[in-house]
Amino acid sequence: MILENISSNKLFEGWHKQYTHSSSVLNCEMRFAIYLPPQASSNTPVPVMYWLSGLTCSDENFMQKAGAQKLAAELGIAIVAPDTSPRGENVTDDSNKAYDLGLGAGFYVNATQAPWNKHYQMYDYIVNELPQLIEANFPVTKERVISGHSMGGHGALTIGIRNPDLYQSMSAFSPICNPINCAWGQKAFSAYLGDNIEEWKAYDSCELLANHKKHQPILIDQGSNDSFLQDQLKPESLTAIADSKLNIFQLNIREGYDHSYYFISSFIESHLRFHAVNLGLIKNS
Amino acid sequence: MILENISSNKLFEGWHKQYTHSSSVLNCEMRFAIYLPPQASSNTPVPVMYWLSGLTCSDENFMQKAGAQKLAAELGIAIVAPDTSPRGENVTDDSNKAYDLGLGAGFYVNATQAPWNKHYQMYDYIVNELPQLIEANFPVTKERVISGHSMGGHGALTIGIRNPDLYQSMSAFSPICNPINCAWGQKAFSAYLGDNIEEWKAYDSCELLANHKKHQPILIDQGSNDSFLQDQLKPESLTAIADSKLNIFQLNIREGYDHSYYFISSFIESHLRFHAVNLGLIKNS
Repeated sequence: MILENISSNKLFEGWHKQYTHSSSVLNCEMRFAIYLPPQASSNTPVPVMYWLSGLTCSDENFMQKAGAQKLAAELGIAIVAPDTSPRGENVTDDSNKAYDLGLGAGFYVNATQAPWNKHYQMYDYIVNELPQLIEANFPVTKERVISGHSMGGHGALTIGIRNPDLYQSMSAFSPICNPINCAWGQKAFSAYLGDNIEEWKAYDSCELLANHKKHQPILIDQGSNDSFLQDQLKPESLTAIADSKLNIFQLNIREGYDHSYYFISSFIESHLRFHAVNLGLIKNS
Repeated sequence: MILENISSNKLFEGWHKQYTHSSSVLNCEMRFAIYLPPQASSNTPVPVMYWLSGLTCSDENFMQKAGAQKLAAELGIAIVAPDTSPRGENVTDDSNKAYDLGLGAGFYVNATQAPWNKHYQMYDYIVNELPQLIEANFPVTKERVISGHSMGGHGALTIGIRNPDLYQSMSAFSPICNPINCAWGQKAFSAYLGDNIEEWKAYDSCELLANHKKHQPILIDQGSNDSFLQDQLKPESLTAIADSKLNIFQLNIREGYDHSYYFISSFIESHLRFHAVNLGLIKNS
């Protein structure tokens, strides 16, 4: 696979770079961003935090707004931010251009239903194709952690829970915790996965957590003033299951914080430290 | 003057808020953003750093991308980010919609030439009207420092140098240091101020620094890989004058960094600490 570098910016003595590449899994050209901390070299490869963004986002939102790179540079963690759906003129979008279906709303699933299934295979892209590309082209180890926001928080949790040997820890901001029981998830899953709700459960954090055996540490931050909290996010559903299953599960309700990147920026360093502990980079977060 | 609050986001235990108001100086409705650190209250008002953005920017770029609020919250400094020009359908724009003249390109001057002089009075807006509004409506002191980027770095230096009793220190990222001798400045100044170059000198940092007597400390950061460095920014012109005039003048050339907010985010904390020292909030930066 050929990577084309389209931007480079030095920051915190490391480098932010954007690349495009042809994705065979998604059948289209994709763009991603990577932050390489100053420690990263072929002699000293670094672990990777994959960041999955929320509805409407691209690879740019997190890199520009979250303020994660300063501590990532100190800890020696690379960050990879993929796009949130397949892209391009040939890729099916919602007929009404809704913000919560189609472009910018891949929901990190492998679609089984036409016309979506030709391109919308974001689960496989995130779990397999993208990490292979990253590990083949950059000075990184195969150690991965995963985090995300809202739809991307759902992606981080479901992907992490389903792949305990690939991701050492998971975290999320304002994740959609129980998509089979909220409007965003039901709309997307019925389009991408069809009417059989049993098929949806493979992409629902609550269902996965209740039925899988090996789980890694999970950290979640949720703002109390998030306008999507009650109807779409439902962290209490996950907590009820997680508390009985996991040794390390932390849900922080942050009083007065909302759904924005201002909220994420306020707590992203605690997530990086959490992952650094689980990667063995530091002892205590 | 009436302020209308149009957004509020909690971050780092303080608040980011946007407001609109009718500006009598600019003859239009304006928007600005303010970050109030958690310490700010009527009993414990805090000093203000005014941030002037560069070409094409609004009040949002710095607040979303610079990562300044974490340390501002620790130090107890409010940040005010105004827009970069008068705004609205009735405000004259460049006939070619150029990015470097008209909307988004006020250059922090008081225009004397028609049709610009009806609205483009950004110098008076930044020095007088906006601070009066801020000081009347928020828990802040009258202590001010000023910083900015590119066109806004030019604004911060010229406004600071011309008003030594109003601003305790100045800083800039990649400032246009000698606008009367670069294409950006010559284009804007000839439109806004007319053909008499003597009039331009009131808005040129090099001219001002050479001819004024009392100067506050100045900190400048400049990326060595900034594509505008040689033709537009010319920090060496300022250094040649400043070194003989100021006790405290620091120009840092940052190897490999460019003109972007990734550069700003990498060094904004050193600017906040510099201003905090000059405000007496901390002893050493």
